[in-house]
Amino acid sequence: MTKDVAVIMGSRSDWTIMQEACEALDLFGVSWHAEVVSAHRTPKRLVEFSEAAADQGYKVIIAGAGGAAHLPGMVASLTPLPVLGVPVTSQALNGVDSLYSIVQMPRGVAVGTLAIGAPGAWNAGLLAAQILATQQPDVMERIKRVKQERADAVLADAQLGASQ
Amino acid sequence: MTKDVAVIMGSRSDWTIMQEACEALDLFGVSWHAEVVSAHRTPKRLVEFSEAAADQGYKVIIAGAGGAAHLPGMVASLTPLPVLGVPVTSQALNGVDSLYSIVQMPRGVAVGTLAIGAPGAWNAGLLAAQILATQQPDVMERIKRVKQERADAVLADAQLGASQ
Amino acid sequence: MTKDVAVIMGSRSDWTIMQEACEALDLFGVSWHAEVVSAHRTPKRLVEFSEAAADQGYKVIIAGAGGAAHLPGMVASLTPLPVLGVPVTSQALNGVDSLYSIVQMPRGVAVGTLAIGAPGAWNAGLLAAQILATQQPDVMERIKRVKQERADAVLADAQLGASQ
Amino acid sequence: MTKDVAVIMGSRSDWTIMQEACEALDLFGVSWHAEVVSAHRTPKRLVEFSEAAADQGYKVIIAGAGGAAHLPGMVASLTPLPVLGVPVTSQALNGVDSLYSIVQMPRGVAVGTLAIGAPGAWNAGLLAAQILATQQPDVMERIKRVKQERADAVLADAQLGASQ
Amino acid sequence: MTKDVAVIMGSRSDWTIMQEACEALDLFGVSWHAEVVSAHRTPKRLVEFSEAAADQGYKVIIAGAGGAAHLPGMVASLTPLPVLGVPVTSQALNGVDSLYSIVQMPRGVAVGTLAIGAPGAWNAGLLAAQILATQQPDVMERIKRVKQERADAVLADAQLGASQ
Amino acid sequence: MTKDVAVIMGSRSDWTIMQEACEALDLFGVSWHAEVVSAHRTPKRLVEFSEAAADQGYKVIIAGAGGAAHLPGMVASLTPLPVLGVPVTSQALNGVDSLYSIVQMPRGVAVGTLAIGAPGAWNAGLLAAQILATQQPDVMERIKRVKQERADAVLADAQLGASQ
Amino acid sequence: MTKDVAVIMGSRSDWTIMQEACEALDLFGVSWHAEVVSAHRTPKRLVEFSEAAADQGYKVIIAGAGGAAHLPGMVASLTPLPVLGVPVTSQALNGVDSLYSIVQMPRGVAVGTLAIGAPGAWNAGLLAAQILATQQPDVMERIKRVKQERADAVLADAQLGASQ
Amino acid sequence: MTKDVAVIMGSRSDWTIMQEACEALDLFGVSWHAEVVSAHRTPKRLVEFSEAAADQGYKVIIAGAGGAAHLPGMVASLTPLPVLGVPVTSQALNGVDSLYSIVQMPRGVAVGTLAIGAPGAWNAGLLAAQILATQQPDVMERIKRVKQERADAVLADAQLGASQ
Repeated sequence: MTKDVAVIMGSRSDWTIMQEACEALDLFGVSWHAEVVSAHRTPKRLVEFSEAAADQGYKVIIAGAGGAAHLPGMVASLTPLPVLGVPVTSQALNGVDSLYSIVQMPRGVAVGTLAIGAPGAWNAGLLAAQILATQQPDVMERIKRVKQERADAVLADAQLGASQ
Repeated sequence: MTKDVAVIMGSRSDWTIMQEACEALDLFGVSWHAEVVSAHRTPKRLVEFSEAAADQGYKVIIAGAGGAAHLPGMVASLTPLPVLGVPVTSQALNGVDSLYSIVQMPRGVAVGTLAIGAPGAWNAGLLAAQILATQQPDVMERIKRVKQERADAVLADAQLGASQ
Repeated sequence: MTKDVAVIMGSRSDWTIMQEACEALDLFGVSWHAEVVSAHRTPKRLVEFSEAAADQGYKVIIAGAGGAAHLPGMVASLTPLPVLGVPVTSQALNGVDSLYSIVQMPRGVAVGTLAIGAPGAWNAGLLAAQILATQQPDVMERIKRVKQERADAVLADAQLGASQ
Repeated sequence: MTKDVAVIMGSRSDWTIMQEACEALDLFGVSWHAEVVSAHRTPKRLVEFSEAAADQGYKVIIAGAGGAAHLPGMVASLTPLPVLGVPVTSQALNGVDSLYSIVQMPRGVAVGTLAIGAPGAWNAGLLAAQILATQQPDVMERIKRVKQERADAVLADAQLGASQ
Repeated sequence: MTKDVAVIMGSRSDWTIMQEACEALDLFGVSWHAEVVSAHRTPKRLVEFSEAAADQGYKVIIAGAGGAAHLPGMVASLTPLPVLGVPVTSQALNGVDSLYSIVQMPRGVAVGTLAIGAPGAWNAGLLAAQILATQQPDVMERIKRVKQERADAVLADAQLGASQ
Repeated sequence: MTKDVAVIMGSRSDWTIMQEACEALDLFGVSWHAEVVSAHRTPKRLVEFSEAAADQGYKVIIAGAGGAAHLPGMVASLTPLPVLGVPVTSQALNGVDSLYSIVQMPRGVAVGTLAIGAPGAWNAGLLAAQILATQQPDVMERIKRVKQERADAVLADAQLGASQ
Repeated sequence: MTKDVAVIMGSRSDWTIMQEACEALDLFGVSWHAEVVSAHRTPKRLVEFSEAAADQGYKVIIAGAGGAAHLPGMVASLTPLPVLGVPVTSQALNGVDSLYSIVQMPRGVAVGTLAIGAPGAWNAGLLAAQILATQQPDVMERIKRVKQERADAVLADAQLGASQ
Repeated sequence: MTKDVAVIMGSRSDWTIMQEACEALDLFGVSWHAEVVSAHRTPKRLVEFSEAAADQGYKVIIAGAGGAAHLPGMVASLTPLPVLGVPVTSQALNGVDSLYSIVQMPRGVAVGTLAIGAPGAWNAGLLAAQILATQQPDVMERIKRVKQERADAVLADAQLGASQ
């Protein structure tokens, strides 16, 4: 069955971080399918996946990768669908390499990049939901409700103390 | 008349860079409206704009800012619409401060961030068009056509020389 | 009852670090009130708080936040009171993102920024006390006394050893 | 005659940037006195100046320096007055060295640090005015008026264009 | 006619820098062919080129790209030939983004990365020649001769002066 | 007996990382010899080793070092053989110092630099094998086979899940 | 009794790292005295110490500090003696702030800066010994002997293995 | 005739910056000899120079280099004399690569590193003079006199202005 969002990543080890995107999508009632599509180890699979993505019914692609992170940008060069990139935290450079490799795309191929690591993955799910929400009123409702709940939670527990 | 994309920026001096977003939107046949909405000098106008944006018919917001760039993230906290952020090149830190201030959003508020400076602004226009294209077949056609033209242009002029 | 210093932060998780500011304020005999005011999750609460702060009798605002840290700068854009910013240590970038997001404010909105993390929070309390001390002689006395005590402590225990 | 703000800097070559602080102070009706106090070339003058500053009637000290910028922190260690630091743009490292040398003060000595270069100098003047404004209603009025004028100027000239 | 080294780059604007590689190859008597192969604008051409490179008789591939530089790594994932990468200087980040995007490859796909900009391009030509030299004695001779000439040039002109 | 690849490093403590290069070489059937050659503690041994390397039958040199990492560049200045450099992770700067010290070689002396740490060491082994493979068909076969196996492994285990 | 080298540091917590300097000095037979001289907490003690250092018979001063590390540069501005600076590893920025604060001194006040952390402290002891060695032949002998022993130790244990 | 300080550099193009060291040495009455000793193009000359330096009567060596700057560290590994390193400003990375390559020496080989670029070169001359001054009273006198003159110059011209 067709899903709205493809969540792909360069390596199985990125799944811990990237499943935050899926949790966000679940929260907002958006369907997703997740798989490993390695730019470096399965480059031709990357081409096939990217070229078929629109016809398979995907509306948004979320791609996570670390280090010299080529996956999001390469997918974006092969599909007309909007691509969101998640810089996975890397070992030596803490994800700065991932961030630069994903965000600094040249004019003509766009990757909407989120924060480094788990918060970025979650937000990629949120942003995908926001993109779909203009057409799916129930997703829009959920986004507004979650936003309100989070604000309420902050407000209900905002007082921390005071001097005597 | 309603436009699909709002292009906002923190300062009139960002317009040189941000009009690249508008040029891209024009190329893809997407309607836009551009104005200055300063997070720091007109914070209440920022709130009004952001809260009204969805009702005014905007589908995507592109926000550019430099230095301690708070505009994209603050708009994103006030609207359910997808927000794309453009880190405007800054004087002392070449836009690294702009990039970090825009991309490193906490879980719960997402900004799809593009590259620093003019290429990022152009790509923000492209990504907004890609977001709209799932519903607007003519925009999708234009995206594919421009992509093909650019590939053709590269291929037609790819040979650079060889040793004798 | 009116307090002199408002200590606010973007998230409850910042409290561990930010309570160092309150400890410093206690040490110098300055009254404070601490609460969570999230720029991103409760942006309208941020506006209300900031606009009311001066009328509520606050003299100085200390604001701590991490990552794309917009709280200090946004508060500063909404109040005529002096705002001190504390860059909370972040996960991927160790607080460099927090620092740049807080300190690199454009001409016209000022945030007096302290060091990354706990030492910065403590110093924000000290600087707030120094600001108040010009009007509150007893605070001035305490600042001088603490300074002297710390110098004495260093001097009393300064010898580390020598070669034979 | 007594001035409210001392504007000091490590070198005469910093004056181009630091006079922005004086322009801001003039705008807000705050009195100032500016001089060179070099931490490295006149260290004893630095001690004398800092120890006498409070008795001379200064309420706030603004200190600008570049590179291994020790002036703001050393002054802060020698006076109970609030010290604001301006990282002057440096040649090789664009002011990152200045910023780190000023902002990363250890617990116990606080420097309220502003942005690198001219915007930071201007904002140091503004922050000094904000500190004084709690006691000087006319300064408070000017701060509010300038803020309003700047907001009005942005709003009056905010429209940039739209697609046809 | 078959050439030993393919010199490819992401954009025609990289040619100014990348022709330094060709000049070095000429100096060492190594044959080359240069063309634009854009990872982002012509991704399928990239696949074709990379898969055919070994059969076309190339022995080494030199790939230059800037910003989110994906060309060298993607080529390396598609060919068993050794790939040398040249980080082309970028506008906002001076080539640090190019460097990280090229050098930080994950285990399993290797790119031998040279310095940022023109010196790196020249050295890519040299390293390609060194790789070929183990099989081509005349190339080895030229490498040794150039090395000697450069040493001689330094030694002949090494004296700079002395105090009286 | 002659080996094809010399694996050298600045310190015995680098061996944990550098033996990844040897594992890769073993996997591809390339012979190697590993030893400590310290640029700083045994500089004359460095000269002897480098000048003799070609005559001893080595075809490629892999050199790993950390911090102010001078080994790869110094060896490259003393041998016509291709030199591959591995930036070993350093304590304070996470290997950024190692990377810059190795990759930023001036025009005329080339070091093909791999990623920081263990992945870079493994890839140095792979790149050395790729260099040798043009002459050793069985190494070429192994490279292709390993590449295929890794792609197959990714493909066999690529599915991660989907929303219901 | 007069010592040749003063080892000073900004805080007692720096002693773990700085005693490496003393160990090196012991190894080379150089006399030393270590104490805490805080630039920020005891600035006047800093002035007294620095001005008296030459008369007290010290020949070299080693100063370690972290974060906004002002101690080495301030001492250097107050004494004609050679000053060596050790950037102590800091919490948030890993010592990059310490390094920039110490090394980026303006023309006219020099600090010979060593590596970040323990290796830099040890080397400060070595460099102080080298400075004294031109006048103290026995120190020179010890330096040469230690250097030789270290080279011998490397050479004796240099072989790491080889492929079969 | 024997000189006290050897000023060496990796390339003739470094001379513009490095002659600042010679100007400082002249100012302090210290004799010097300057020449090009390239670590990368004339490595064996580097070994000869370094091993002979002490016997030739040099007391201090000043070495400047840029990019992957190996000269200062390699000289330091080959001589018992104190070595001062000047990180020459580099093209892509503004001298950060030079700085890291020079300062981050491992335990056992010390380079006293000065600031990036011309101020660092001048200060290397000053520090060399300070090292020699403990034995040469006239150099000590000159250092004190220059220091005093510079302080006097600052003091004579310290007033910059004041508000009316």
